[in-house]
Amino acid sequence: MDIALGIDIGGTNTKIGIVNREGEILQKTSLPTSSENLSHSFLNELQDEVDELLNSNDDLTLSGIGVGAPMANSRTGIVSNAANLNWEGKVNLREFLQKRYQVPVFINNDANLAAVGEKTYGAAVGMQDFIVITLGTGLGGGIISNGELVQGPDSLAGEIGHITVRENGRHCGCGRKGCLETYVSSSGIKRTVYKLIADRNDSDSLLAKVLFKDLTSEVIYNAAMKGDSIAKEAFKHTGEILGLQLANLVMFTSPRAIFLVGGVANAGDLLFEPAKKSMESHLLRSCQNTVKLLPSKLDDNNVPILGASALVWESVDHMIANSVDI
Amino acid sequence: MDIALGIDIGGTNTKIGIVNREGEILQKTSLPTSSENLSHSFLNELQDEVDELLNSNDDLTLSGIGVGAPMANSRTGIVSNAANLNWEGKVNLREFLQKRYQVPVFINNDANLAAVGEKTYGAAVGMQDFIVITLGTGLGGGIISNGELVQGPDSLAGEIGHITVRENGRHCGCGRKGCLETYVSSSGIKRTVYKLIADRNDSDSLLAKVLFKDLTSEVIYNAAMKGDSIAKEAFKHTGEILGLQLANLVMFTSPRAIFLVGGVANAGDLLFEPAKKSMESHLLRSCQNTVKLLPSKLDDNNVPILGASALVWESVDHMIANSVDI
Repeated sequence: MDIALGIDIGGTNTKIGIVNREGEILQKTSLPTSSENLSHSFLNELQDEVDELLNSNDDLTLSGIGVGAPMANSRTGIVSNAANLNWEGKVNLREFLQKRYQVPVFINNDANLAAVGEKTYGAAVGMQDFIVITLGTGLGGGIISNGELVQGPDSLAGEIGHITVRENGRHCGCGRKGCLETYVSSSGIKRTVYKLIADRNDSDSLLAKVLFKDLTSEVIYNAAMKGDSIAKEAFKHTGEILGLQLANLVMFTSPRAIFLVGGVANAGDLLFEPAKKSMESHLLRSCQNTVKLLPSKLDDNNVPILGASALVWESVDHMIANSVDI
Repeated sequence: MDIALGIDIGGTNTKIGIVNREGEILQKTSLPTSSENLSHSFLNELQDEVDELLNSNDDLTLSGIGVGAPMANSRTGIVSNAANLNWEGKVNLREFLQKRYQVPVFINNDANLAAVGEKTYGAAVGMQDFIVITLGTGLGGGIISNGELVQGPDSLAGEIGHITVRENGRHCGCGRKGCLETYVSSSGIKRTVYKLIADRNDSDSLLAKVLFKDLTSEVIYNAAMKGDSIAKEAFKHTGEILGLQLANLVMFTSPRAIFLVGGVANAGDLLFEPAKKSMESHLLRSCQNTVKLLPSKLDDNNVPILGASALVWESVDHMIANSVDI
């Protein structure tokens, strides 16, 4: 059976999965992501785990390997100074894996993987123009235009978490101020909750009883479900800021759909309704009611592995399509 | 000699030019753009002019026809309800021209033409990732990513004049408020001049002696050159708003260069310097000093004809490239 290997290198753990063409994860394993003795330790451990997975079944034909990692450059195959991974300098993951397994290796960042995953297995199958917004600790964007991932020469396209939405706004981890992700992300909504409590001097809110470090989008969601007005307002505010920027995004690439994935997006209508309303009211008339705002169809936990494996099928399909064209 | 025909359908006049592969306009003519009896009058007149141009030289081999028109849909070849042209309903320009001349016909809007023109003959030759911003009465964007025009399914991508930059900001012709082009365009800078005169209660400014209807970016430029502080401030303000949005654009598609073309952009450093400074200060650090802000290399007056003809060579090159790949 033809399979793809999906590898998701995260800050703490690295997950590896064997995925078939239908997007089923046949087997899965993980190991700690280590930053010590990178090339002699982590990469060898990674290789051992992969070998074990692949050897567990004789019937598997490896079509390729997809890797998701922060600061991954899809063109060079190199991960450079990935702060989240504590990796210093440059690591050429593609070269390492290609040499070892003699199959095509593809590498990309999380948001781009989410977009390719949605296109291959999820709610965007058959779509040529759409955008995926990942809402985790930060905010990422994967843009598919005319069927292709918009990446830019250094694979830096889609960093829309760092669009400036408020001049002299909230401090961002990137060192600047007013970036979109300081408002729209799980850390953004948490900051909005504290701001609202401060503005309203509201010590009765359920959320005023939670320490800053313990606030998560899930805690805020649960409070909103119990009718807490700070929690509901925080989602509304987050959705409104997001919606305006989604309208601006539509002006750039004119997508048919935008998918909101992960973290805050799991709140469903609490986020989708104000976001949709704000998006429509900020869209050029000719674009109104032309763009769907949708949830993902993929399981949150598996998105990076699925997306990584989808890079492989994407490339296989591309080759087939090109040879059919001739 | 292989030639392309470039047709630029504007609000008042339609210009037609014969262009060679090097981007030289060999012959040029024009006719009034008429909205009366569209199909029986204007289209026939257009055809007569084209016939005359093509018959003037036996040595010409027509490779294709490129057409620039507002509200042109590049995929269908149709111009729909173009307000600037007073054309009601739908006009299938591509079908009309293809039937008559039996060559490939390409159609697109001004900003996209400017981008393709710059790529084929201008300052972007050999570039794969860049954006052209046209600054006329409005603001348009032509985005080239990985060598291809980003168009979207309805050919509506790049409408970045209608990004919302100020909630409840200036009224826009599109019926909404706070669109980028209400600040950054020849009409935008004119409004900024009047706002500054109002704010400062400055009746001594050279520009306070000019009626609103007579203000143009050239008049404002000339006043700035004479040291008028309102005029200089208006360019600075315009450049700063533009620069922030250029930084946001970079986050989307990660271009290598952005070209500012036409109208306000002709003011050179007066606009480019504040725009560049503002762009750099709003860029994610990894993107700082990676994007050039440049003027066009094409003659302003000929950009639409050149861009339209470039659509033809673009397609010819595409066909050659694909057959070489095989």
